[in-house]
Amino acid sequence: MIDVVAFDADDTLWHSESLFVVTQERVAELLAPYVDAASLEAELEATERRNLAVYGYGVKGFTLSLVETAIAVSDGRVTTDEIGTLLDWGRGMLAHPVELLDGVEETVRTVAEDHRIVLVTKGDLFHQESKVAESGLGDLFEHVAVVAEKDPATYARVARDVGVDPARLLMVGNSVRSDVLPVLELGGYAVHIPYHMTWAVEAAEVAPDPEVDGRHTQLRSIRELPAHLAQLRG
Amino acid sequence: MIDVVAFDADDTLWHSESLFVVTQERVAELLAPYVDAASLEAELEATERRNLAVYGYGVKGFTLSLVETAIAVSDGRVTTDEIGTLLDWGRGMLAHPVELLDGVEETVRTVAEDHRIVLVTKGDLFHQESKVAESGLGDLFEHVAVVAEKDPATYARVARDVGVDPARLLMVGNSVRSDVLPVLELGGYAVHIPYHMTWAVEAAEVAPDPEVDGRHTQLRSIRELPAHLAQLRG
Repeated sequence: MIDVVAFDADDTLWHSESLFVVTQERVAELLAPYVDAASLEAELEATERRNLAVYGYGVKGFTLSLVETAIAVSDGRVTTDEIGTLLDWGRGMLAHPVELLDGVEETVRTVAEDHRIVLVTKGDLFHQESKVAESGLGDLFEHVAVVAEKDPATYARVARDVGVDPARLLMVGNSVRSDVLPVLELGGYAVHIPYHMTWAVEAAEVAPDPEVDGRHTQLRSIRELPAHLAQLRG
Repeated sequence: MIDVVAFDADDTLWHSESLFVVTQERVAELLAPYVDAASLEAELEATERRNLAVYGYGVKGFTLSLVETAIAVSDGRVTTDEIGTLLDWGRGMLAHPVELLDGVEETVRTVAEDHRIVLVTKGDLFHQESKVAESGLGDLFEHVAVVAEKDPATYARVARDVGVDPARLLMVGNSVRSDVLPVLELGGYAVHIPYHMTWAVEAAEVAPDPEVDGRHTQLRSIRELPAHLAQLRG
């Protein structure tokens, strides 16, 4: 029934958002002489949203938005030493070791025994490919698609590239907006595995249509995925 | 004989390096109070080379390296206004209209009549996909591969993804190092069309092996490509 299982990467296979959150906490401390944490957070989110159309997703755009925000919230008083620190932290995020989520390694290997598996992720191409290589899981994936946006057109292209009918594709990810809704719209299957934190820009305000019930479910852990796939096979 | 023609994008289909050069000239003027143009250029190139392993290619990494370099060459005296200007210029590059090189539109359409065509490019995924869309040529390409590095393994993967024997693939591009040598090594064909300027990091110090003569050539303009393809058909 399901031929291809597609996995999101950040916050589905390995930790990512937690690294952004930790960095933002350090930035809030660094910029505390200029701005309170809540105002900084609001200003950074507004800057990131505004820049998304030119930067796209990923750590490099985040770092650029950090520098822009630091200048704005300090009325230009932030020091070049402090800006240098922001650049260092951005590079540190890009070089940060990949930390797989609990159960990922075993589960991905298990699923790969009975299915073709692919990876579909947003973010900086170079960074994502580095993380795939470092994860040790790269060879299991038939195809790694780093994409600019996760909409139905993107998933249709990925399905075409790997040669699968979307109706036989199941996507696994932590974002309702990016991993679940567009795949359901295309007639595919989706599994939502929430991560304990979600980037504000990624938060979905809509729930999946009840009519597509049976094609999507929520699991608490990726460890429950093989049993869910077995159940779909009936 | 040639089934698939692969095109590089930046400085092959549209102008790119010239935009970096113009920006660097403006940066040299902006930072003239702190550093002479030659020292700035040397420091920026060193910074970009050092950061390549974490940033990869593209405008976002270039902008981050610009800010880092400006702080370094000014001993931290660069103002936050000036850093804001660097960020503005980086965003301006990302939003800059695509300017096709002379003859590109007609030639790509002509080649697409008799061949499957694909695009293989480095750089920021999001930016490259935006440029492909804006170029008006996107629909002609069967596959657009934005890649982290252009080495033989990458071209082998692209050939596999589009289902072509590398021996029936011809790559067209402005970089000997990235577009010609790795494809020849894989047993494919290559056409080198020099752009009038080359990024220092992209400059190849090696020429193609004479033994592979017949599988590579240099053309002065992309307009000569259809005749070259006809000649290869014999």
